Amino acid sequence: MTDAQWYTEQFELSGSSIGFRVTGKLEEVQSPFQKIEIWDTTDWGKLMVIDGAIMLTSRDNFLYHEMMSHPVLFTHSNPKRVVIIGGGDCGTLREVLKHKEVEHAVQCDIDEQVTRLAEKYFPELCESNGDPRAELLWDDGIAYMRNCAPESVDIVIVDSTDPVGPAEGLFNEAFYASCVKALRPGGILVQQSESPLVHLGLIRAMRHHMAAAGFSDFRTLPFPQPCYPTGWWSCTLARKGGELAGFRERGAASKTFPTRYYSADVHRAALVLPEFVKQGLREE
Amino acid sequence: MTDAQWYTEQFELSGSSIGFRVTGKLEEVQSPFQKIEIWDTTDWGKLMVIDGAIMLTSRDNFLYHEMMSHPVLFTHSNPKRVVIIGGGDCGTLREVLKHKEVEHAVQCDIDEQVTRLAEKYFPELCESNGDPRAELLWDDGIAYMRNCAPESVDIVIVDSTDPVGPAEGLFNEAFYASCVKALRPGGILVQQSESPLVHLGLIRAMRHHMAAAGFSDFRTLPFPQPCYPTGWWSCTLARKGGELAGFRERGAASKTFPTRYYSADVHRAALVLPEFVKQGLREE
Repeated sequence: MTDAQWYTEQFELSGSSIGFRVTGKLEEVQSPFQKIEIWDTTDWGKLMVIDGAIMLTSRDNFLYHEMMSHPVLFTHSNPKRVVIIGGGDCGTLREVLKHKEVEHAVQCDIDEQVTRLAEKYFPELCESNGDPRAELLWDDGIAYMRNCAPESVDIVIVDSTDPVGPAEGLFNEAFYASCVKALRPGGILVQQSESPLVHLGLIRAMRHHMAAAGFSDFRTLPFPQPCYPTGWWSCTLARKGGELAGFRERGAASKTFPTRYYSADVHRAALVLPEFVKQGLREE
Repeated sequence: MTDAQWYTEQFELSGSSIGFRVTGKLEEVQSPFQKIEIWDTTDWGKLMVIDGAIMLTSRDNFLYHEMMSHPVLFTHSNPKRVVIIGGGDCGTLREVLKHKEVEHAVQCDIDEQVTRLAEKYFPELCESNGDPRAELLWDDGIAYMRNCAPESVDIVIVDSTDPVGPAEGLFNEAFYASCVKALRPGGILVQQSESPLVHLGLIRAMRHHMAAAGFSDFRTLPFPQPCYPTGWWSCTLARKGGELAGFRERGAASKTFPTRYYSADVHRAALVLPEFVKQGLREE
């Protein structure tokens, strides 16, 4: 929904809306998969919208991209091979490649147009696309994980849209089973898991399906994200074999690359769940 | 701004908006000070709006009220006398009175109509108004603090609207100097301090004025708050004499009253500032 000056997304499920003041639409592309719009805003830089859903702004995407990458990478003891499913804007890929231990990172998004528009309007997110360790694919992420060589991957990052429409198949047991198969023992899946305030049932269901698929331990980390419903979001980690207790705190504290949100202290803090979230996740 | 089904607030300063799906306006009162509206929503219970600004919803106010009260109360070694400036919806008062050490809590809001409407539409927030330790005043908070007996108060909670209009005088050095005078040594002021994402300059200015007025140490604690700009908010603590390091962790961990967001772990986590906030507050 737009009026002359604002782009507003009304979230049916949560009964709330978020909007940004815009100065105009810069581009609209109908790809084979979805409609992608780029807007210019007065205070949030560029805004990307896919099928009417706000995806990211220049100003606040660092929160999401840092939390989708650094916690899982500093939790794994030695992350060499990373697969990103979705993530076509390349922001997660950029963060992943900040980790020198990573030898190979595949980004598999179904829609090449998302990346082409990111290159044009969010070039800062694409600055590591030429890294020799990076491999950009435009293909079906579900098929990619199904066909992945067994025990060939250390980390799978599911950086997708909401679990309705094309991304629905990234939230079920069959997909998680593919991930379990592709991961080496001790490997970790991380997935964006919506708002702890309005989607606790979804997080519970995700963890249930992950467990049924063979993952052995789980952690949900909340973080602020102004452009998503309620302004408060989360990612959920699931490990193949063993527990998900702790992370490489010394590695995180002595990291040699800059971050704007993430730090070892922030990571430790994100592992603390508010009372109602703790209680809600227990009700399984 | 409203259309048939949504109440939306557009924030000029942040260039973003937040809205709730509504089923209708339940009441509108023009008090001597401001226009107060109560709306019914589909998913957030009741919604209170003052002069067009969203104040609270039934669903998410617990985040704000718990974070405006429990961190400061568990930081003070022995909080007996508490003053709340603003807070007319009585939600902060209710949380304060959960602490048995509190012997007297004054709530001084300029507008009695806010409390009358809270009693009617947010009765759960007013359930401690009859507590013999509670004193409800409807008066000018600035004058109240100016006239307070010196060294008579342990904690001042400034639970006000934004620093424009009537609440502007609650964010300057003169007001903070009144608070310093009224507080006992070691006493603590806590004030809502807007969004760390878009109002860092304001938080810096607040801390600067607090220091100029004689406060000796400061902590800013972020927390999620869906109904306020960016969905991410903060409170800032300032102490009269001594440092603000740590809190009564054992007391918080063994508290005998229920909370939905706050816990000793959440308190510790809230003391961790994201990198860009830490850096932004340093630039003074």
